Amino acid sequence: MSEATRPDDGLDIDLDGDTLREECGVFGIFGHPEAAAITALGLHALQHRGQEAAGIVAFDGKRYHSERRLGLVGDTFSKRDVIERLPGSAAIGHVRYSTTGETILRNVQPLFAEIQAGGFAVAHNGNLTNGLTLRRELIRKGAICQSTSDTEVILHLVARSQRERFIDRFIDALFQLEGAYAFVGLTNKKLVGARDPLGIRPLVLGELDGHYILASETCALDIIGARFIRDVENGEIVVITESGVESIKPFPRMPARPCIFEYIYFARPDSVVHGRNVYQVRKRFGAELAAESLVEADVVVPVPDSGVPAAIGFAQAAGLPYELGIIRNHYVGRTFILPTQAMREVGVRMKLSVNRAVIEGKRIVLVDDSIVRGTTSVKIVRMMREAGAREVHFRISSPPITHPDYYGIDTPDRTNLLAAQKSLAEMRDYVGADSLAFLSVEGIYRACGYERRDPVRPQFTDHCFTGDYPTFLTDVIGESAKQQLSLLAEAS
Amino acid sequence: MSEATRPDDGLDIDLDGDTLREECGVFGIFGHPEAAAITALGLHALQHRGQEAAGIVAFDGKRYHSERRLGLVGDTFSKRDVIERLPGSAAIGHVRYSTTGETILRNVQPLFAEIQAGGFAVAHNGNLTNGLTLRRELIRKGAICQSTSDTEVILHLVARSQRERFIDRFIDALFQLEGAYAFVGLTNKKLVGARDPLGIRPLVLGELDGHYILASETCALDIIGARFIRDVENGEIVVITESGVESIKPFPRMPARPCIFEYIYFARPDSVVHGRNVYQVRKRFGAELAAESLVEADVVVPVPDSGVPAAIGFAQAAGLPYELGIIRNHYVGRTFILPTQAMREVGVRMKLSVNRAVIEGKRIVLVDDSIVRGTTSVKIVRMMREAGAREVHFRISSPPITHPDYYGIDTPDRTNLLAAQKSLAEMRDYVGADSLAFLSVEGIYRACGYERRDPVRPQFTDHCFTGDYPTFLTDVIGESAKQQLSLLAEAS
Amino acid sequence: MSEATRPDDGLDIDLDGDTLREECGVFGIFGHPEAAAITALGLHALQHRGQEAAGIVAFDGKRYHSERRLGLVGDTFSKRDVIERLPGSAAIGHVRYSTTGETILRNVQPLFAEIQAGGFAVAHNGNLTNGLTLRRELIRKGAICQSTSDTEVILHLVARSQRERFIDRFIDALFQLEGAYAFVGLTNKKLVGARDPLGIRPLVLGELDGHYILASETCALDIIGARFIRDVENGEIVVITESGVESIKPFPRMPARPCIFEYIYFARPDSVVHGRNVYQVRKRFGAELAAESLVEADVVVPVPDSGVPAAIGFAQAAGLPYELGIIRNHYVGRTFILPTQAMREVGVRMKLSVNRAVIEGKRIVLVDDSIVRGTTSVKIVRMMREAGAREVHFRISSPPITHPDYYGIDTPDRTNLLAAQKSLAEMRDYVGADSLAFLSVEGIYRACGYERRDPVRPQFTDHCFTGDYPTFLTDVIGESAKQQLSLLAEAS
Amino acid sequence: MSEATRPDDGLDIDLDGDTLREECGVFGIFGHPEAAAITALGLHALQHRGQEAAGIVAFDGKRYHSERRLGLVGDTFSKRDVIERLPGSAAIGHVRYSTTGETILRNVQPLFAEIQAGGFAVAHNGNLTNGLTLRRELIRKGAICQSTSDTEVILHLVARSQRERFIDRFIDALFQLEGAYAFVGLTNKKLVGARDPLGIRPLVLGELDGHYILASETCALDIIGARFIRDVENGEIVVITESGVESIKPFPRMPARPCIFEYIYFARPDSVVHGRNVYQVRKRFGAELAAESLVEADVVVPVPDSGVPAAIGFAQAAGLPYELGIIRNHYVGRTFILPTQAMREVGVRMKLSVNRAVIEGKRIVLVDDSIVRGTTSVKIVRMMREAGAREVHFRISSPPITHPDYYGIDTPDRTNLLAAQKSLAEMRDYVGADSLAFLSVEGIYRACGYERRDPVRPQFTDHCFTGDYPTFLTDVIGESAKQQLSLLAEAS
Repeated sequence: MSEATRPDDGLDIDLDGDTLREECGVFGIFGHPEAAAITALGLHALQHRGQEAAGIVAFDGKRYHSERRLGLVGDTFSKRDVIERLPGSAAIGHVRYSTTGETILRNVQPLFAEIQAGGFAVAHNGNLTNGLTLRRELIRKGAICQSTSDTEVILHLVARSQRERFIDRFIDALFQLEGAYAFVGLTNKKLVGARDPLGIRPLVLGELDGHYILASETCALDIIGARFIRDVENGEIVVITESGVESIKPFPRMPARPCIFEYIYFARPDSVVHGRNVYQVRKRFGAELAAESLVEADVVVPVPDSGVPAAIGFAQAAGLPYELGIIRNHYVGRTFILPTQAMREVGVRMKLSVNRAVIEGKRIVLVDDSIVRGTTSVKIVRMMREAGAREVHFRISSPPITHPDYYGIDTPDRTNLLAAQKSLAEMRDYVGADSLAFLSVEGIYRACGYERRDPVRPQFTDHCFTGDYPTFLTDVIGESAKQQLSLLAEAS
Repeated sequence: MSEATRPDDGLDIDLDGDTLREECGVFGIFGHPEAAAITALGLHALQHRGQEAAGIVAFDGKRYHSERRLGLVGDTFSKRDVIERLPGSAAIGHVRYSTTGETILRNVQPLFAEIQAGGFAVAHNGNLTNGLTLRRELIRKGAICQSTSDTEVILHLVARSQRERFIDRFIDALFQLEGAYAFVGLTNKKLVGARDPLGIRPLVLGELDGHYILASETCALDIIGARFIRDVENGEIVVITESGVESIKPFPRMPARPCIFEYIYFARPDSVVHGRNVYQVRKRFGAELAAESLVEADVVVPVPDSGVPAAIGFAQAAGLPYELGIIRNHYVGRTFILPTQAMREVGVRMKLSVNRAVIEGKRIVLVDDSIVRGTTSVKIVRMMREAGAREVHFRISSPPITHPDYYGIDTPDRTNLLAAQKSLAEMRDYVGADSLAFLSVEGIYRACGYERRDPVRPQFTDHCFTGDYPTFLTDVIGESAKQQLSLLAEAS
Repeated sequence: MSEATRPDDGLDIDLDGDTLREECGVFGIFGHPEAAAITALGLHALQHRGQEAAGIVAFDGKRYHSERRLGLVGDTFSKRDVIERLPGSAAIGHVRYSTTGETILRNVQPLFAEIQAGGFAVAHNGNLTNGLTLRRELIRKGAICQSTSDTEVILHLVARSQRERFIDRFIDALFQLEGAYAFVGLTNKKLVGARDPLGIRPLVLGELDGHYILASETCALDIIGARFIRDVENGEIVVITESGVESIKPFPRMPARPCIFEYIYFARPDSVVHGRNVYQVRKRFGAELAAESLVEADVVVPVPDSGVPAAIGFAQAAGLPYELGIIRNHYVGRTFILPTQAMREVGVRMKLSVNRAVIEGKRIVLVDDSIVRGTTSVKIVRMMREAGAREVHFRISSPPITHPDYYGIDTPDRTNLLAAQKSLAEMRDYVGADSLAFLSVEGIYRACGYERRDPVRPQFTDHCFTGDYPTFLTDVIGESAKQQLSLLAEAS
Repeated sequence: MSEATRPDDGLDIDLDGDTLREECGVFGIFGHPEAAAITALGLHALQHRGQEAAGIVAFDGKRYHSERRLGLVGDTFSKRDVIERLPGSAAIGHVRYSTTGETILRNVQPLFAEIQAGGFAVAHNGNLTNGLTLRRELIRKGAICQSTSDTEVILHLVARSQRERFIDRFIDALFQLEGAYAFVGLTNKKLVGARDPLGIRPLVLGELDGHYILASETCALDIIGARFIRDVENGEIVVITESGVESIKPFPRMPARPCIFEYIYFARPDSVVHGRNVYQVRKRFGAELAAESLVEADVVVPVPDSGVPAAIGFAQAAGLPYELGIIRNHYVGRTFILPTQAMREVGVRMKLSVNRAVIEGKRIVLVDDSIVRGTTSVKIVRMMREAGAREVHFRISSPPITHPDYYGIDTPDRTNLLAAQKSLAEMRDYVGADSLAFLSVEGIYRACGYERRDPVRPQFTDHCFTGDYPTFLTDVIGESAKQQLSLLAEAS
């Protein structure tokens, strides 16, 4: 998938939503005098995980303070007055992506509720596959849902638990959830983190000057100079109080099965995910790809920025020169709506431009990280041709995406997934390349250091390539997941 | 009270909060193709009842659409795109006042909940005297409160009722409420209105081209050319559906006891409240006042705009000339913060200026509608002196305010009510007038056409003058009403 | 003219521009440590003279600082940071009205130029009747005009003068101007004020703590507690420096001829213009009107707010009760655009509502200050009828407007002036009144204390009623005054 | 210079203004029905040349329309309503950078004047070295300068020329200018382009569907699919009318001497400047640098994004692996002000983060394109050390900057230029590298295809490295260039 289709480019109409989108990044810190400011920095480092909205909740020992806004972290949380409205030594934060029209302020996280035991704020990365079912049941029992977010379900479940202690209520609630989640939660006394039993979504534990931190990726620790301690484990709850960190593992033990897309697309190249540096993994994807589908060519050209590490890996493995044949314009605003028909045709050139001198007369290997709908790929290949490329060999550093995700990645349905609709040869013809090759599923596992994919207990959540969903899909099977979450359509 | 202290003047700091403020105006219409646009006009006519925030919820047969904003009705609902985001033939709306810092977007009404039977939106004028108690009980049972508004309680009570039909759930909920309320509610099938058993807050029923309307005052009917049908009665629920209007009276019958402050201050002069034109009542207050405390003088001068009708009545009764001795500047914005010390001293002159030619060398009768803290009165009397008034006789067209309100009027506590702290002579000295007189309680009743106040069943809610509160005050007696409603302090 | 048509009501389309509009108010202060803050207050008191834009230029001894914005004074100059960006002990300011589309930021005053002798900022109330002609000549000579304002001409004339001293350059420039002007100007050393030879536009001199002030009206002195010294005379230049005030009278002496509309409509009721309190003059207009055209009736009702003083005067003279039969809604925002057809028909009711209890069954004398196009008058009379008025006798406290103004009042051309197109009987029928009467021209002069209008040297500029223009009209006669002032159409 | 210090990062305070900034990009098109929309796209492609403000002037055959705003092109000109306010088939546009506080709306280009012959709009890239002197002379003659921009001088010179035809006036004006300029101008009949006699600033001629285009760089042609025709030559005026293109060369012929910084830093990598692809030139800078100062190392790491092409060139020439050892965060907003002390220390990490896995234990060659103040370089080297780099060899792909620029690049004065104050060894110690090397001046020329720098007629404007200024510096020599341009300090 080309990063040209990342949500920040605003060319959605033109580029036909040819994109994957993750819903969230989370961050939390406990005991630091500048908790909100630190959280703002952490969220800034996690901005690539969600650009539509950001929020922080801080607790000052007496009251919770909340600021939640549409837009980038820097749009809101770079301002002194906003940070000053978030006093306290504990804070959690959230960045999110959401499809247009549904990003309404009510849905921006962290969510908050006052429960019997005090306040409880929570931020969620992931998606519950029984969220709709739980919500319907709660409303039947008289609950009032203010958001259309599945995250609100956890609040209600905690509020309604008959247990006394907060942590028992929280475990009560987790037992009812199905799907993927990495939670950070804040109560009057605690910062808590939790990952689902398979550890589909990431969460790491860090430390800064003796204060514990939870974050989606290590890059959020690096920006503030914090030390990485360890990944929160699959099925683990970490409870951070003034006395330190406690680990609770309420679920039956099972091997972790993290989402492979963190390596392919979502995580930042400098993050370390489950012990692996993401940039190095992507380079190895490129190297494996070169090994699997080498071709005679003059240059290796990445689709910027998403294809860069794999292209470097490919070029090194293939012994071909790596060249910037496409230049990315980073100034495109999030809402650049092309105002006239003439301008609309300009399309992808607003974001990507050919560096003709590198392309003209050359046989090029064009490297991208994935293909979703393929509409952007068509345009990029055509740009190469128009710039005089002699041959265009398109190489994708992940396998064909044939199945939608239900764990927090916003994929189109199968009828819009190119690889679910066409054969490899048809795809090659559709994008207009001289040759097209994807990295194999086994190549992915090899690049991650496994001999092979374990077919019984696969090491990764990889259903987008294999159809092998790791959990029940209660909402999907029960009825259409597209059903509206609420009667209330509220603009932000 | 001087209207100089109305919330729209932004001089709160300078004028020391010397003001009464009502929390709301409500409006609803059913079956009209331009329901939201009509509601916007109705709210505009009710703007004097609340200037801090406004909201409209419309139902299009499938979904509810909500727009709620801080600011004046015209700031938001004058815009075509906002109205277009509120499609549907049924709508309810709300304007509110609230003390600074607590007007947060979460609290702006109408509130909405999805309940078992469908959607339910509600707007509330009034205040529940057991709202805090109910809220605490609901949270104990696992309810999640998103606002700090007591109105949210009604949503939860309706959602949790075990009854089947919406209207039975609604009655269930009303039975648990104590205090003052005029509700307009919207469901998938109905527009409902309800007044508390004493009818403390106003609500009228009207009709436009065959479509029924509910509104706080008749002026909201006049602006759209609608016909006034009747007041909703105390303790009555009106249910408007496609079949027409149904009246339900679930409470034991008792005489109405509407709030006297609607006549004194809140209602617009052209409204008809309980069969009386407000302007005429205020003129009669002035005439009674002249009869009770006439004085030799040259001119009658109103404190604009609040004192104008009573001053006209006083002048006519006393046979004295009515003159504009104080000019009001209507251009003061809601947030005019005087930027420097020098400017701050300018104070009341930003809003009111003396018309010296009318004042100089004269014995003046200065007429205002009420005194709350008295700080503005001091300044106005001083302005008269500085302009050369020979004598200043201050006449107030209502009795001394000695007790706080708990039914939707935001009064200071007793230590800040001038009349609760000082004798008449002390008050006269404090404001610096040559003489000071208030209208008597009996004068109020006479002006409203009663021979006298019925001490057993007073015809009005008049505790601010008499201490005779018409309902239990569960929250006040139980504990301090000042206790915070929520752990969450959220800025808008 | 009804104040319902004042520019702040935003109902221009509906009310067909049925209005007079003056272009400006000016203010200046010299030597005060809080010059900009004082100027902001003065402009706020002059807000009725122009609501579209406001500007202040301050000089700190080294540099000029300028803030000019569309909107009300309070929108911009109530903010601490704005005032802090205007340091210095000398400042001038300006409020303006302008027709929509032409209020562009480049035209907002004060204007500034760097000239040979230093900086020169100037604010202008009035209109030059040879402005276009001068501008055309300047461009022919290579001048670059940045605004479409005729005020810029004075900058160029001062800049191009061959004289050495600033004041000689300024006089040089004034000698070339024709029309109406009240200027306040600021240089590195001086605050200057100037009125045209006839004194058509007003300007007064005041003093606060020893610092001199210039302002369009005395109400701008009152708000800051400043002392009124005297009117600047017609044809006088006052030069304020650290040494005090100097008066220069470069023109041949002639009697003053101030614009009568200041008394009729523009000035604030509490201002003293040429020794007369405006409120008292308006009351006398009403009294003269009662004497000229009394009628049997039950009540006198003003069109608020413009008709209020004349109605009080009429009622007192006629011995009829004065009643608020029309209530004005002061909450209408400046840009309230009615969003749907249904709402557009609501028209004038957004601003004015009938107080039916006062009107029904009554013979009413309806008093307004002027009729321009008459479109609003039609609506108000119809409102009276619909509220049940038995008879409507419309009384206008000024003569029929038959000629357009060219001195700073924005009048429609003759084809749109009702009185230029119709006889009195036709006008009565058009507005739908039972009777219609205007105050006579002689009545105006009598009310102002003159025995009669001096036909040779009329005491007022009154061409709108008489066609007797006091100066040459070079631009009008040369060619259409409507010709565009600039090739550049720039939005703000 | 690290691109971390580009103006879009808002970390100016922290990074001590360690940056070069060019003032402008220009664009113009004649005869196209969507002239303004095309111009918006062109400016978007030139956004890297100036991010503070953008403006477009369009001519519709009768009137000029102007929109000028602070902010990015996409912030304003992506909106349909803005483009619709710019009708006409001819348009010119401008993007600019300017130091904070001086980017005031009056200075945003294109500037416009109405002159004797009609309208004239102009946009300017470059800086006049006698601008202040000309301005002072113009004011002495009575001209009124509205901006503090030296571009305004050209308007006055054209307006004051005694010649009849526009083009003669324009040439008259150019003859009086000294310094660097690439102008695009628009009159009622013509689009004109002009480069100074040495061609210091770039300007190219292109064509789209038969309509001629002028632009600063070829990338602005590529985005709209236009064809590159040729560079406008040094000292050439191109005049585009309905009849086609005419070339005028009024100056004595001399060899071109374009600014070398276009290759080093300013131009976009995919642009072709004077026949050379910028990316290829930068790669050759890297290759020459490798040849001049090779070192034993493990990896080549660019400072993103500015150092990337040179690093690729260095790596290929040296046979070392190219690795992304620093990750750039593109989400940093333009105004990200770090709100607390703790956050301020975070500094450069907001923009750049170390990819530790690539750095740890390695001997790295760190490649950047230039060093200005050196403050950012210190931080980046320190980041490398903290990430465990074994050795850091800093390589700069341009010579030491020892002299300030006066031709449109905003350089600090000599006391703040690191290379003007320190020896190479001192610089190495200051930045903390194990070794430091700059590309030689001769290396620059070799990379551009010259055998050597011609010391008599150097092929480039390269005074920043050599002190060899190509024109007189009238303003600098006459007096301090820092003298304020205007008495008027106006905020936007």
